[in-house]
Amino acid sequence: MCRLAAYLGPAVPIAHVVVDPAHSLLEQSQHANEAKLAVQGDGFGFAWYAEGAGPGLYRDVLPAWSDGNLLSLCKMIRSPLFLAHVRASTTGETTRLNCHPFAHRRWSFMHNGQVPDIDRIRRALEALLPDDLYLARRGTTDSELIFLLLLAHGLEDNPAEAVQSVVALLQEHSCYGQGCDEAVRLTCVMSDGDAIYAFRHSSDARAPSLYAAETREGGWVLASEPLDSKTLTWAAIEPDALVTLSHGGVSRVPLAFDVARAA
Amino acid sequence: MCRLAAYLGPAVPIAHVVVDPAHSLLEQSQHANEAKLAVQGDGFGFAWYAEGAGPGLYRDVLPAWSDGNLLSLCKMIRSPLFLAHVRASTTGETTRLNCHPFAHRRWSFMHNGQVPDIDRIRRALEALLPDDLYLARRGTTDSELIFLLLLAHGLEDNPAEAVQSVVALLQEHSCYGQGCDEAVRLTCVMSDGDAIYAFRHSSDARAPSLYAAETREGGWVLASEPLDSKTLTWAAIEPDALVTLSHGGVSRVPLAFDVARAA
Amino acid sequence: MCRLAAYLGPAVPIAHVVVDPAHSLLEQSQHANEAKLAVQGDGFGFAWYAEGAGPGLYRDVLPAWSDGNLLSLCKMIRSPLFLAHVRASTTGETTRLNCHPFAHRRWSFMHNGQVPDIDRIRRALEALLPDDLYLARRGTTDSELIFLLLLAHGLEDNPAEAVQSVVALLQEHSCYGQGCDEAVRLTCVMSDGDAIYAFRHSSDARAPSLYAAETREGGWVLASEPLDSKTLTWAAIEPDALVTLSHGGVSRVPLAFDVARAA
Amino acid sequence: MCRLAAYLGPAVPIAHVVVDPAHSLLEQSQHANEAKLAVQGDGFGFAWYAEGAGPGLYRDVLPAWSDGNLLSLCKMIRSPLFLAHVRASTTGETTRLNCHPFAHRRWSFMHNGQVPDIDRIRRALEALLPDDLYLARRGTTDSELIFLLLLAHGLEDNPAEAVQSVVALLQEHSCYGQGCDEAVRLTCVMSDGDAIYAFRHSSDARAPSLYAAETREGGWVLASEPLDSKTLTWAAIEPDALVTLSHGGVSRVPLAFDVARAA
Repeated sequence: MCRLAAYLGPAVPIAHVVVDPAHSLLEQSQHANEAKLAVQGDGFGFAWYAEGAGPGLYRDVLPAWSDGNLLSLCKMIRSPLFLAHVRASTTGETTRLNCHPFAHRRWSFMHNGQVPDIDRIRRALEALLPDDLYLARRGTTDSELIFLLLLAHGLEDNPAEAVQSVVALLQEHSCYGQGCDEAVRLTCVMSDGDAIYAFRHSSDARAPSLYAAETREGGWVLASEPLDSKTLTWAAIEPDALVTLSHGGVSRVPLAFDVARAA
Repeated sequence: MCRLAAYLGPAVPIAHVVVDPAHSLLEQSQHANEAKLAVQGDGFGFAWYAEGAGPGLYRDVLPAWSDGNLLSLCKMIRSPLFLAHVRASTTGETTRLNCHPFAHRRWSFMHNGQVPDIDRIRRALEALLPDDLYLARRGTTDSELIFLLLLAHGLEDNPAEAVQSVVALLQEHSCYGQGCDEAVRLTCVMSDGDAIYAFRHSSDARAPSLYAAETREGGWVLASEPLDSKTLTWAAIEPDALVTLSHGGVSRVPLAFDVARAA
Repeated sequence: MCRLAAYLGPAVPIAHVVVDPAHSLLEQSQHANEAKLAVQGDGFGFAWYAEGAGPGLYRDVLPAWSDGNLLSLCKMIRSPLFLAHVRASTTGETTRLNCHPFAHRRWSFMHNGQVPDIDRIRRALEALLPDDLYLARRGTTDSELIFLLLLAHGLEDNPAEAVQSVVALLQEHSCYGQGCDEAVRLTCVMSDGDAIYAFRHSSDARAPSLYAAETREGGWVLASEPLDSKTLTWAAIEPDALVTLSHGGVSRVPLAFDVARAA
Repeated sequence: MCRLAAYLGPAVPIAHVVVDPAHSLLEQSQHANEAKLAVQGDGFGFAWYAEGAGPGLYRDVLPAWSDGNLLSLCKMIRSPLFLAHVRASTTGETTRLNCHPFAHRRWSFMHNGQVPDIDRIRRALEALLPDDLYLARRGTTDSELIFLLLLAHGLEDNPAEAVQSVVALLQEHSCYGQGCDEAVRLTCVMSDGDAIYAFRHSSDARAPSLYAAETREGGWVLASEPLDSKTLTWAAIEPDALVTLSHGGVSRVPLAFDVARAA
């Protein structure tokens, strides 16, 4: 499990989300309250957009709290739209190419969750990718694969349909609804540089947490855990809906899943 | 605060201490029971001796649990005497040169504890080092400085006297006994390749924990927390004594400190 | 292109090959004579066997010459059979999982060369792997893929046949013999812990260099470039033959390739 | 020896200097023409200012050419004033804290050159630092020490006098002019965020190269080697003068050194 945060609004230093708040993403990397593990020390990353360019990508395998570069970059880089992630890996070697966010063309993507039987079904899912997305895969995580599958199912044109298609794929191939030891869990945040799209979904109705708050300057923040409950008012994102944050405001589209879901 | 372990006895893979036990040092790096922080993710290291050579030194800034090399090296390297350390740093950038153990000539050294006002007194203490040890300093930790001060005060000839001298130095220069916000704490383990020397000391009588156990094969293990309470019997190391583990057995020399110690 | 070396014989410190000789592998990483690039700074690695165990694996993304751990490990680790590699990558991000040697069960493998159109044919070749070897792939290099293909074609039972089969595969799928801009080049060294197998092959008869020498103590060394021409006598390995070094001596089996090879 | 570059002018992506030109700093890291070594693979760094903030600092121990983050950051970060450096170290372990540029308060600093007998004189020079600058030292390089000495001698008030004072210090303490095996060489570039200051000086009149060019947009670039001789006109910086680049233009103040200099 991981912790993540995203921002859209007037350009601010990335530190306003990642470093400065009382329960910043950096703080959550060491003292998470709502995650299975309190510590997310297996790498970090952020993706950001600015003035028509992006996403830029900065990822490393150190814990976020011990990377001196991270602090400096977060203070200096101002951006109107960014995603940030701290990773807790239960298996496998930590490598930059397995750190979130992932980027492809204009899109960036990050994930908090799991596909418990990914090793059993990974090959079958990779076989479904078109050639260009197959070759774009650089690491071995379930998260990167979900991103590439979303792209293959039309993420760039219709995010809600892409999400529904990929969840259907997981229902078809994985243990989803068929007696997994652990649930399939997907809390995903992604962007094309204009808007931020987010959803929470799980095979057992316990999707990883995600909250939203409006900033005083009219921007929006998403975070796995509220960054600061004194100055901002946080609302939990409802599961099974695609939430879109854009400069025009917030919208919410229900996602329809044809699932026999565990309790 | 950190977690540490050491071994002397018939040659075994380092994994026997660092990886294999139920509460191995690797496990303690993620789930420590007796430390202020449950997680020690700011680097690790081990020093080992073999067939008249050593100490070899392997240190890195990753969390121990995410370094693929560490597992392989621990399984493959057999040694009759080694020290291992996982680090939790509260301040400062993580760099290999600040990771324990430290080595100088035949000696290796690691430390669990703190000198709370080190920044105020560091220059005065460094000024006391002879030239060769001053130039041997590579990092900026209090721990490396204590090691070099021990060497300057005769560690190679009389470890007990060296420890007493350096504690006296700390009493003279630091806030020790004079109203530190936090105590001076020193739990140190060191070796010349023939024996392992260890002591616990604190200005407030709460020195970081250290336990010892005899292995079934007649070796000895030291560890911040018992590695496995099912198969081995662990005894807490008493504070204010220098414990020496050698192939001849275990000995214990009381250390005399002239201190007005806080409760 | 890369530089590599391997050793089989009485146990010696790895430094005897990697560090100590005048033109050691470490020296070749900065001043190669027979490679396209003089510098191989994109990571390094070694695999070693000892007392029935292995292969151990130590790889990192730093240049070999700037890794402090490497020197210490090479001095301390004694082994009767090891492979070592320094990497020069022309494209892509450097990551540990793309560093040589690669290991699978008892086997280790390293490669110096290239498959110029690997991106075009990678998917087709990966599709030929059996499931367990498909899932064993951790990186994205042509080299790891060749290793897995060799395993899929019986490397463990008949190395010479496996090599011939995989070269035939490359002839079938790649631009080999069909107007590549650059040649397909394979100089490979691999081991099962008992023997070392090596071959040189290229689609244009300019396979990357490889030399062998007998040590004074009755061991054998392979290296991309002679390590020390004062004390040892080096012979170039002939292309298109599988050379086997074992404790019983050296043998050579011609490899038959059905190729229309460029001049 | 190292390669370095700096820019002042209308805000541009750092890539305009570090990545894009035919003989960019990244290219110089692999194929330097005017350095002792063609390859500078022992770490890199850049410092930048923006909108009253800075310096930001990004440094790492990888070769510049193999750091995926570097490319992305250079493309995305726009700055009106930045310094960049690729390092070739002949001795010692590569660590972030020894990578250039160094920063202190508003100042950043980078160095190409050497003090050959630094180990002999390091302690005496460090003893001359005031307490706050002594404690600000994080690494062990001669370069960081020169920066701190410059600050101690009034860099913030009068850069030219500070440079003259520190060179006088080196003449007094080092082998400068007294039969060094190798010359004392200082090509330094530094900034306070408003202007860039640079000088070349050597005990043997062969100070490391440094060139300047005006960009088409009215900015200025400094570089160890011309970045692109097709589009810009480069002039060698004369030794023994302090060159100041500011938004007001370029000025040059001769530096007076009382030196018996080798030929």
